[in-house]
Amino acid sequence: MTALTIATPSSNNLAPSRLRELLEPSSIVIVGANTTNTWSSFTHSNLGAAGFEGTVYLVNRRGEECHGQASYTSIADLPETPDLAVVLTGTNSLPEIQQQCIAKGIRNLIVLASGLGEAGAEGQALQQLLVDRARSADQLILGPNNLGFINAHAKVAAFGHMTQLPLVTGSVGIASQSGALAIYLLPYMASRGVGVSYAVTVGNEAMVSAIDVMNLLIDDPNTKVIAAYLEQITNTQQFLDVARRAREAGKPIVIFKAGASEASAMAAAAHTGSLAGDDNVIDAICKQFGVIRVSNIEELVATAGILESYGALPGPRFGVVTGSGAMCALIADKAQDAGLELPAPLESTVQRLREEGLPEFAAVNNPMDTTGYISVDPSILTKAGDAFIDDESFDFVVLNTSWPTNQFMVDLGKPTEPGLHRQLKEAGKPVVAMSFLPTEVNEFARNFAAEHGLPHASDSFERGIEAAGHSVWWGQRCAQLEDELELKTPAIIQKPDAAEHFSEIETGDFLRSHGVPYVPGKVTSTVAHAVQTAETIGYPVVLKIASEDIAHKTEVGGVRLALKDATEVAQAYEFIMDSVARLAPEACIQGVAVSPMRPAGNELLVGIITDPQWGKVLAVGFGGVMVEILKDSALRLLPVSPVEIRRMLESLKGIELLTGFRGSQATDLDDLAQRIFEITEVALGLGDQLEELEINPLRVAGNQIEALDALVRWKEQS
Amino acid sequence: MTALTIATPSSNNLAPSRLRELLEPSSIVIVGANTTNTWSSFTHSNLGAAGFEGTVYLVNRRGEECHGQASYTSIADLPETPDLAVVLTGTNSLPEIQQQCIAKGIRNLIVLASGLGEAGAEGQALQQLLVDRARSADQLILGPNNLGFINAHAKVAAFGHMTQLPLVTGSVGIASQSGALAIYLLPYMASRGVGVSYAVTVGNEAMVSAIDVMNLLIDDPNTKVIAAYLEQITNTQQFLDVARRAREAGKPIVIFKAGASEASAMAAAAHTGSLAGDDNVIDAICKQFGVIRVSNIEELVATAGILESYGALPGPRFGVVTGSGAMCALIADKAQDAGLELPAPLESTVQRLREEGLPEFAAVNNPMDTTGYISVDPSILTKAGDAFIDDESFDFVVLNTSWPTNQFMVDLGKPTEPGLHRQLKEAGKPVVAMSFLPTEVNEFARNFAAEHGLPHASDSFERGIEAAGHSVWWGQRCAQLEDELELKTPAIIQKPDAAEHFSEIETGDFLRSHGVPYVPGKVTSTVAHAVQTAETIGYPVVLKIASEDIAHKTEVGGVRLALKDATEVAQAYEFIMDSVARLAPEACIQGVAVSPMRPAGNELLVGIITDPQWGKVLAVGFGGVMVEILKDSALRLLPVSPVEIRRMLESLKGIELLTGFRGSQATDLDDLAQRIFEITEVALGLGDQLEELEINPLRVAGNQIEALDALVRWKEQS
Repeated sequence: MTALTIATPSSNNLAPSRLRELLEPSSIVIVGANTTNTWSSFTHSNLGAAGFEGTVYLVNRRGEECHGQASYTSIADLPETPDLAVVLTGTNSLPEIQQQCIAKGIRNLIVLASGLGEAGAEGQALQQLLVDRARSADQLILGPNNLGFINAHAKVAAFGHMTQLPLVTGSVGIASQSGALAIYLLPYMASRGVGVSYAVTVGNEAMVSAIDVMNLLIDDPNTKVIAAYLEQITNTQQFLDVARRAREAGKPIVIFKAGASEASAMAAAAHTGSLAGDDNVIDAICKQFGVIRVSNIEELVATAGILESYGALPGPRFGVVTGSGAMCALIADKAQDAGLELPAPLESTVQRLREEGLPEFAAVNNPMDTTGYISVDPSILTKAGDAFIDDESFDFVVLNTSWPTNQFMVDLGKPTEPGLHRQLKEAGKPVVAMSFLPTEVNEFARNFAAEHGLPHASDSFERGIEAAGHSVWWGQRCAQLEDELELKTPAIIQKPDAAEHFSEIETGDFLRSHGVPYVPGKVTSTVAHAVQTAETIGYPVVLKIASEDIAHKTEVGGVRLALKDATEVAQAYEFIMDSVARLAPEACIQGVAVSPMRPAGNELLVGIITDPQWGKVLAVGFGGVMVEILKDSALRLLPVSPVEIRRMLESLKGIELLTGFRGSQATDLDDLAQRIFEITEVALGLGDQLEELEINPLRVAGNQIEALDALVRWKEQS
Repeated sequence: MTALTIATPSSNNLAPSRLRELLEPSSIVIVGANTTNTWSSFTHSNLGAAGFEGTVYLVNRRGEECHGQASYTSIADLPETPDLAVVLTGTNSLPEIQQQCIAKGIRNLIVLASGLGEAGAEGQALQQLLVDRARSADQLILGPNNLGFINAHAKVAAFGHMTQLPLVTGSVGIASQSGALAIYLLPYMASRGVGVSYAVTVGNEAMVSAIDVMNLLIDDPNTKVIAAYLEQITNTQQFLDVARRAREAGKPIVIFKAGASEASAMAAAAHTGSLAGDDNVIDAICKQFGVIRVSNIEELVATAGILESYGALPGPRFGVVTGSGAMCALIADKAQDAGLELPAPLESTVQRLREEGLPEFAAVNNPMDTTGYISVDPSILTKAGDAFIDDESFDFVVLNTSWPTNQFMVDLGKPTEPGLHRQLKEAGKPVVAMSFLPTEVNEFARNFAAEHGLPHASDSFERGIEAAGHSVWWGQRCAQLEDELELKTPAIIQKPDAAEHFSEIETGDFLRSHGVPYVPGKVTSTVAHAVQTAETIGYPVVLKIASEDIAHKTEVGGVRLALKDATEVAQAYEFIMDSVARLAPEACIQGVAVSPMRPAGNELLVGIITDPQWGKVLAVGFGGVMVEILKDSALRLLPVSPVEIRRMLESLKGIELLTGFRGSQATDLDDLAQRIFEITEVALGLGDQLEELEINPLRVAGNQIEALDALVRWKEQS
C-alpha cells in the first residue's frame, strides 16, 4: 500500500510500434474469402477502392475464385508470409486457423467473428485461448467482434463493411469500440469535409484497446486530432497517461462516450457515492485532464474539424460578420452556452466602417448584420471582415460562408471570393468559416477548398460555435494544467486501532488530530451526563446519536437541534434514545453526542470516495437539497491542487452563496480551497485503508470553516 | 376593465382568405426588373424553375430586355392587371410605385426593400404611409424587408434569392420572420426529405405577420404541420387564438424562436419579475397551449418530418430493433431526455424469438441488438421487428434504416426490403425509420420512398428520438387540454381604499379577507407594544419591519426570527429600528409586525406578475436559494386550473421536498394546487388594478399551508 496510488487494473500497454506493424501491412491474406460473404466482398472491394498497393491473397477452403481473383485452399500454400491475415471464418474454426497462421509466421490478425469474449463463459475461454497462443507466438490480434481498420495515408482499408470510398484523407485519427459506428462515421465525416488518418475498430479489445490506438495516434505524424467512441474504459491508468501524452504532444483528444444508461457499480451508502456514478466521474476526469467530451457524433466531427484546421483558438472573445439578422440573433443565443463571449466592437472599428461608407442606419454591432446595404455595396462584407479582424476586442472572427458545392455557387461568389480567401488564410488571427444551416460538403466543395488552400468550414453555426467553444476550452485547460505545480506526496497516516468501530466522536477526534477543523463534542451515555456536558459547553447545544451503524441520523430521529436549557437537553436525550430504539433496533449505540449549536451558515459536503475503477475521487457541493435533489456538485480525481479545488467551488451553481449573497459575509475561496485540500491530504495519507470520508456538513460562514459531522468508512479487510 | 382580460395590443387580424389571394396569383409583375439585380434574376428564375403556369410581366423603366424577356417601361402599360406585383425598386421610389400599382388596380404587393420600419423614424413614417394607402385601396403588402414567398402546390416561387429548386412538395407550411433563414431552410429540408407546402417570409410585418401566415396554414388543406421561425410575437392574443385553432384542427405548430439574448422589458422589483423574463414566459406559454418549441433549426425540421408522417405518436413507450450495439447504448442515453421510455419486452416476445431460432447467447433487450447472429440468419431483423410490433409494451417501434441513396444500396437492401416496407406501412402501430448518423436524403432516396409509399425516415436517431419525443408530448398535451374544464370567471374584487399605502399587515388583512391562509400578525410601534403583543400571541415570535417602501426586508436587517421571551423581543425591536434607519433611511415606516414563529417547513414562492405583452402570469417555485439562484420555477399564463397548477408543482426539480423527502410528511398536491388556484382568483378578480402579488414564503408543512409574507404592488394610475 502506498499513498497516491490510483487503483486501476494492471497496465499491460501495447507498444505503438507493435500496433503500427499491424496497421501498415504490405501484404494481406483474407482467410475465409467467399463470394456470398459480405465481410469478404467488402474487405476485398474496400482494399481495391482505397488503392492498396500491396498484395492481397485469398484463402477459400474449396479453392474457388472469389471477387474475380484466384484463391488458395490453405494458408500453408501461400507463396509468401503476408504481414496481416484478415480472418473471416466462424467462431469454432478460429483455433485451427490461428495455428495455421502461426505456422506460416503471420504476426498480425484481424478476427471479425463474434461469440467470443462478449458471449458468456465458453466464448471468453475461447478468446483467452487465442490470446494466450498469440502472446506465445508474438502475434497481435485486432478484435475479435470488430470490423477491421482503415489507414488512410497508407491506403489500407482492411474493413469488412460498406464505407466511404475513396477515403477523404486528413488528420483526424479515430479509435472506436463500435464497428457499426465506423460504417456511418466515415461517410458522415466526408460529407462534413473532415478527413481521416486512421479509423480503427477494436471490438472486444482482446489485445488492442481503443486506448492503445489513441496512444499510437499521438505518435502518428499524419494525425493532428484524436477522436474516440468509447463505451467503457478498462485501463484507467493508461487513459490518464494517454491524456497527458496527448496534451504534451499538443494533440487534442475528443471523446464521445455512451454512458448515462450504464448502471453505476458503486455502492451508494453515503451521499457522495450516489453523486458520483461511473459516468459523472468520467465526465469530471475528462474536464480535469483536458480531454474534450462531446455528447453526440455530430459534435465529435464538428469539433475535430475545427481542431484540425485551427488547433486551440486563442481565446473566448469572438466577432461575427454575417448578412443574416437571424444568424446574429441565433449566434448570440448560442455563444454563452459554448463558453464564448461576444464583446462589442471598438469605437475605432465603428468609425472605420463609417469612413468606408457604411450608412448611419446600419448599426455596427457584434454579431454584425451587413444586410440591406450589401445590395448597394457588396464590398462592405470584406470591409467589415477586415475591420473585425483588426479589432483587438476579438480573439477570433467568424464569417458566414461555406465552400461552393457547384459551379453556379462559384460564379455567385466571385465578387467576394478573393477578399474572403485572403481573410481566411492571411489574417493575423484565426478566421473561421461557418455555414448557416447544415450544408453537405460534397466532392466539388472539398476540391475547391483544397485547390484554394482553405481551412475547415463548419457545416452550421450551431455546430461551429459549439466546436469553437471546445477548441477554446481545450487551449485554456492545457494552459492551466501546464501551470499546475507538482504536489508533494502527503504523509502516510496509520488507521487508528479503534477504526473497526469508529463512532462519530472518534471520527471527530481523528480528523481534529490531523488538522481538520471540527466542532467540539462529547459522547454521553446518561441524561445527567448529557445535561452536565451541555452546561459545560454552553447553550444552545445539539444532540446526535453516536453509532457507527447509522449513516443518516436524521432519518431515525437521531438529531435534535438548538436545545437551549437543561430541560430541553433531557427531553431530547430521551426522544433520541426512544426513536432510535424504535427505528433502528439493530444498531449498536455508543451514546448521544453533545456539541455546541452553531448559527446558520452555508453547508458544504466534502466527500472522498474510492471509485473501483479510478481510485480516490473528491466531491464538493452545497449540502442538503442543493446536493441531494439538485445534484449540484463538482468531482475530481485525487490528488488535486488548492487552485483546482477553487475552480471546483466556482463551478457550483450555488457559488453565489459563498461570494456574498444578499449581503452575507463573503468567504475567501482560496482559504476554503486550502482547507478542503488539507482534508484530501488526510484521505490520501490513509491510502488504501480508506474507503470513504464524508464531511457533511462543512459549515462555512464568512471565514469560519468547521466540520459539524463526518462519516468514515474503512476498507473491509479481505 | 374586466377580469380575465389579457393585456395585448388590439388585434387587427388579417382574414386567411385575403392573404391566400396574395399567395395564389395567376399573373405576376416584377417591378424593377433588371439583369444586374440579383433579386430580379432570382425571382424570375425561381418562378420559371418552380413551373409557374401563369403570366410573368417585367417592368424596367428603360424598357430593356431582362432575363431573356421583353419588359414594359411602366406599370400603366401592362396589358392586364396582374394579381401580384413583386416590387424590387429602392426605398425612395416606393410611394410612386405604390401609386402606380393602385392606379392599375393591383391588389397585392411584395416589397423587398429595406430601410423602412426597421430603420429609424424616417423609415417608419414611410412604411406607415405605404400601409395607410394600402388600407384605403384594399391593397395588401407582404414585407417590406423580406424575400417573398413560395407556394409549392400552386408552383409559385416569388422568392428573391437562391433556393432549392425543384421544390420538394409536401405538407409542412413555414412562416419565417427571417428571409435569410428561408434561403438555407428550403434546401436543408429537401436534404432531410421533408417537403414544403408554403414558405412565407414576412420581414417587417407591416400588414402580414408570421402569425397571420400560421392562421392561413391552419385552413390550408395541403398543410399538415406548421413550422415557424420567430424573433418576436407582437400580437399575443392572436398567437393564443392560432394555438387553439391549430389544436382544434389537429395540426401541430413547431416554433423555433430566437430569444435568450433579448433583454427583458420587465421591471424586476420583486423576485417573480426577474424570474419571468420575456423568453421564459414564451417558453411557458408554448408548453401551456400545446405549441412545440424547439431549440434549433435541425430539430425544427426533424420534428416537422416525424409529425408530417405520424402526427401524434400514441405514447412514450417505444421498442428499438437495430444491428448496432452502439446505437442501442446511445438511444438508451437519449430516450429519457426526450420524455420517452424503453420498457423491457414481454416474456412472450423473448419466447417467440427463441422459437423462431434466435440463439440463447443473443439477449432480447430493448433496445435490441440483433448483431452477430444476423450474419447467420438475416431474417432475424424482420422477425425481431414483427415481434416488437406485436408486443403490447410498446406504443411505437423504431427500426434502424434509411432510404437508399443509390442503386448499390437498393441491391444491398433487397433481402430485407419487403419485410421492412410491410412493417412500415401495415403494422398495427407506428413504426418509425431512423438512420444512425445524419444521412443526406438525395433525389434518389426521395424517389425511392415516394415509389414505395414509405413514411419519413429520421436522418439520425439523435434527431429522430428528440422529434418522436416532441410528437408524443404534443399528443399528450392536446389530450390534457381537451380535458380542461371551462373556468368560471372569478368575482371582481375592488382594490381597498388604503391601497396606495399598503403595509404588510394590510396586505395580510386583505388576503385573509379573500380566503388566503395568512399567518396572524399585528403592527406595533413601541417596544412595550411589541412585547405585549408577543405575550398575547405566545412565544416564539418573529418581528418584521412594516413598510411598503421595503421589498426585501432581510437585506436591511428588518427581520428577527425565533424570539423566545420579552427580552429578546425588546432587543430585536430596537435592532430592527436601528438597522432600518441606517440602511433604508428614506423608507416610511409603519412599525414592526409581530407574528408567531412557525416551525421549519417547505417554503414556496407564489407570484402573479403582469407581463406587459401577455398579461397576468403565475410563477410557482421553492423559496430562497432554489428559486433565486437555481431559477427552479414554473410559469403559466392565467387563468389556469388547479389540475394544471398541480402539473406546475410536479415540474419543479425540488418536488421531492413535498412528496415526503427523507421521511417528512407528504403534502397533498391537489390541496396545495387548490390553495394556489384560490390565490390566482384573487389576482384575476383584481384585474387591471393589480400589477403584482407575491406570496413569499407560502409555508407548506405536510398539509399545513399558510402565507408568511406577501407583497402587493398596485398598477400606477395614469
